[in-house]
Amino acid sequence: MNIPYCLRRTRHLNADRIATLHGESKVTYREFAAEVDRSARKFVTLGAKKGDRVAVLMLNCPEYLNFYFSIPLCGAAIMPLNTRWHRNEVTFTLIDSGATILLLDEKHAPILSEIREALPWVRHFVYVGDGNCPSDLEDWRKIPPADVAEFEEPHEDDMAGLFYTSGTTGGPKGAMLSHRNIWSNTVHALLSPNALSDDAVYLHAAPMFHLADASAIVGLTLLGATHCFLATFDPEAVLQLIHKYRVTHIVLVPAMLNMVVNHPNFDRYDTSSLRRITYGASPMPIPLLQLSMRKFKAEFGQGYGMTELSPVATILGWADHKLENLDQEFTPIKSAGRAVIGAEVKVVDDLDRDLPPGQIGEIVCRGPNVMLGYWNRPEINAEVLRGGWMHTGDLGVFDENGFLYIRDRKKDMIKSGGENIYSPEVESVIAGHPAVLEAAVIGVPHPKWDEAVRAILVLRPGASLTEAALIEWCRERLTHFKCPSSVVFMKELPKGGTGKVQKSVLRASAS
Amino acid sequence: MNIPYCLRRTRHLNADRIATLHGESKVTYREFAAEVDRSARKFVTLGAKKGDRVAVLMLNCPEYLNFYFSIPLCGAAIMPLNTRWHRNEVTFTLIDSGATILLLDEKHAPILSEIREALPWVRHFVYVGDGNCPSDLEDWRKIPPADVAEFEEPHEDDMAGLFYTSGTTGGPKGAMLSHRNIWSNTVHALLSPNALSDDAVYLHAAPMFHLADASAIVGLTLLGATHCFLATFDPEAVLQLIHKYRVTHIVLVPAMLNMVVNHPNFDRYDTSSLRRITYGASPMPIPLLQLSMRKFKAEFGQGYGMTELSPVATILGWADHKLENLDQEFTPIKSAGRAVIGAEVKVVDDLDRDLPPGQIGEIVCRGPNVMLGYWNRPEINAEVLRGGWMHTGDLGVFDENGFLYIRDRKKDMIKSGGENIYSPEVESVIAGHPAVLEAAVIGVPHPKWDEAVRAILVLRPGASLTEAALIEWCRERLTHFKCPSSVVFMKELPKGGTGKVQKSVLRASAS
Repeated sequence: MNIPYCLRRTRHLNADRIATLHGESKVTYREFAAEVDRSARKFVTLGAKKGDRVAVLMLNCPEYLNFYFSIPLCGAAIMPLNTRWHRNEVTFTLIDSGATILLLDEKHAPILSEIREALPWVRHFVYVGDGNCPSDLEDWRKIPPADVAEFEEPHEDDMAGLFYTSGTTGGPKGAMLSHRNIWSNTVHALLSPNALSDDAVYLHAAPMFHLADASAIVGLTLLGATHCFLATFDPEAVLQLIHKYRVTHIVLVPAMLNMVVNHPNFDRYDTSSLRRITYGASPMPIPLLQLSMRKFKAEFGQGYGMTELSPVATILGWADHKLENLDQEFTPIKSAGRAVIGAEVKVVDDLDRDLPPGQIGEIVCRGPNVMLGYWNRPEINAEVLRGGWMHTGDLGVFDENGFLYIRDRKKDMIKSGGENIYSPEVESVIAGHPAVLEAAVIGVPHPKWDEAVRAILVLRPGASLTEAALIEWCRERLTHFKCPSSVVFMKELPKGGTGKVQKSVLRASAS
Repeated sequence: MNIPYCLRRTRHLNADRIATLHGESKVTYREFAAEVDRSARKFVTLGAKKGDRVAVLMLNCPEYLNFYFSIPLCGAAIMPLNTRWHRNEVTFTLIDSGATILLLDEKHAPILSEIREALPWVRHFVYVGDGNCPSDLEDWRKIPPADVAEFEEPHEDDMAGLFYTSGTTGGPKGAMLSHRNIWSNTVHALLSPNALSDDAVYLHAAPMFHLADASAIVGLTLLGATHCFLATFDPEAVLQLIHKYRVTHIVLVPAMLNMVVNHPNFDRYDTSSLRRITYGASPMPIPLLQLSMRKFKAEFGQGYGMTELSPVATILGWADHKLENLDQEFTPIKSAGRAVIGAEVKVVDDLDRDLPPGQIGEIVCRGPNVMLGYWNRPEINAEVLRGGWMHTGDLGVFDENGFLYIRDRKKDMIKSGGENIYSPEVESVIAGHPAVLEAAVIGVPHPKWDEAVRAILVLRPGASLTEAALIEWCRERLTHFKCPSSVVFMKELPKGGTGKVQKSVLRASAS
């Protein structure tokens, strides 16, 4: 099983279905498959061969979808770059990966002059966009497709994608995902309660460089469903495109959903076509979920996973989205759901011994979706993949029915006075305050208690709140030792590619 | 991915669901998993180890289900024997496979004395049944479970089952199916339009020794759905059990369906619980399908495949069960459906070149569901698996939309006067005659035309028909050269394990 098969099947069985809707253009799978074939031949012209890495630094667009299929078709691996990275991070990953081709869109072409000198391995810098091609780039449109009789069938264990992630430990690393990794996850997701369907119209609103979206890329294509694109996240544009294309399925991280449901123009758009909203990547505050479920008449699903798992490990389906028993520690709506079919999930202690339901430990996962390993990081691989299980670095606990409750990133857990404090629990209480738009909780060094709890807040426009009032709010709702002892107000929180708050940045500026 | 995982998952997530209904007993998955674990330890006591073959010669029962999980759990492969075989065939497969343990039920225990001497490799003959254990057998109930701390996790490419089949060529052979083969097919089937669901109540009415049923065994267990059992096929008992257990899903071959829908007591039973009826293994006459769709208010699905494909290759789902355009050569209801997700299907010529839609050739299949190979048959494996594709020995043709139309077994096709005659086309016309219960068409040697078409018929009780009248019926509906030139009347047609007519037997007695 491999990526080319997924498109080949749809070309064979559902050639006349609509692959992409973009602007006013409609492209069938017959046309899309022909374009992918043509693009793969262009990569051959550029010298791409089995095992090569082809880097993509672009906003969401139909060409990005094409590259997810044409790069693996010619035997190479796609290497999507985070569009929010600083140029130093772009440079680092290009050097670390040894990518030989870099594809840039109009938005990103300008940074090339700043980084070009530092990239000894890249042989082709290619402009993918409308308008004039900058003089220091090759024009994708003008590259002639090579004359290739037939592409060699990739082996399912060949690397199909190299996805850089800050990951569990040791700085940015490229997670090597094989064809089978991606295929397996696609199938696991399709077997899940919140599966895509073949009549889906899906909006790529989350960034296509991230695997949370890439998973849908393969699944939709395998089913012969329809892709729509939002170049870069904008809450009103999400509403506009749902309205325009009658979008049925979307994946949004909580921070995006927050902006969409709170948008002042929400009611101007018809969102009744939406059937499934999947969220994930960071904890979902219950008040936001309540509001979202009220505003959208869609089914909600939560996915939990990570790039290294291609990416899904557990799913909380619509049937378990019941806003009840919220005062109990274990109620499904507070969980990340249950292991998808095909991925085994356990909670273990520091010696990798299985923990029973009710005990918090590290979440580990095994299955054909687990990455081949990190690119050129044999020591870290030996550590995180020990015993054949991917060690996620996340702390979690099972209830008696196999629902998994995520407590915190192992490294974000706060240790104060001998107690373990899981930051999302505190954040969830703070997010319930009417003046708060967003919140993060970190540990800051403390001479007596090792760490003290600090809350970092973004207030809603026009709202006001004092440090003392926020601490009081928490004391009414949380055990004393979990309450913040200091509060910092910010205009916005630093975020990574999927909208996840970067606590390492907050910690660095706190110390 | 492996067989033990499928049960482990359900034990973890859905322990309290009902695994089996049998007589008046209800067993949960918690209880079933404990019993499987205990049974695997008994197999260890009997010396079963990784790679061993454990043969099962039993009618359908809950213990059979247990063995499908407990034998692979201890690392061995289950080897189900066809209960309709002559003792010589049983002896042949036991010798050929080198099975070391043979499990027999009450029905089959008596044949042991006749074959025991011929079985040098079998170390344990075990009686699995109620009542007294015959003196020449070990009593399964009395075998103590070994003390095993934990079973080694099988590798997904280890053999999980050895299924003897008459197959495509060269006499009976054991198809070696790995854990991954069976897992993949389970997943492919679950992604298909006529999938099982987790609230299914499934009746094992087709024999559990055959993979058409074994596929459901794994899928139901993975989902935590419920199994019911019919020891041996009986049309009224099928109706009784559907009524009693509110059965929702069933797999029947056309010959079985024929007996069920034509049963005089059909209307005495409530079959309204049935949601899905899947048929396959031999061609479905349209009149029988029409009658069945009228009598059952269920969704119908057709599966096409073979043991070597673990077993499903294509599925015709309910949405395509439209009894329309029956006069056209290509209308989906006349097809075997489309390739399931995960299995690639092509039609090729004698030189293995792809054929376009509309051209008849051999059906070949590729995917993780394709068997490891035949046991100890390297030369046949090299032939049937050449180029990485399983050559099915079936002739078929695609339409423009990827629907696959099965024409005949390659070896059953009749060549007469330079024309190719596909026997099912002729059989389907004959089956439409009101006096005909069943029909088979074969080629018999002819001095001038190479072969002549012969029809072999079973008439409905009380009906009468002459050779001339049947030939006339065909001449009104078929091109002249396709019409039988001779007709033979029989009381019943010789059939194999799944109710497939044994044309080799008919041909042998005709020459």
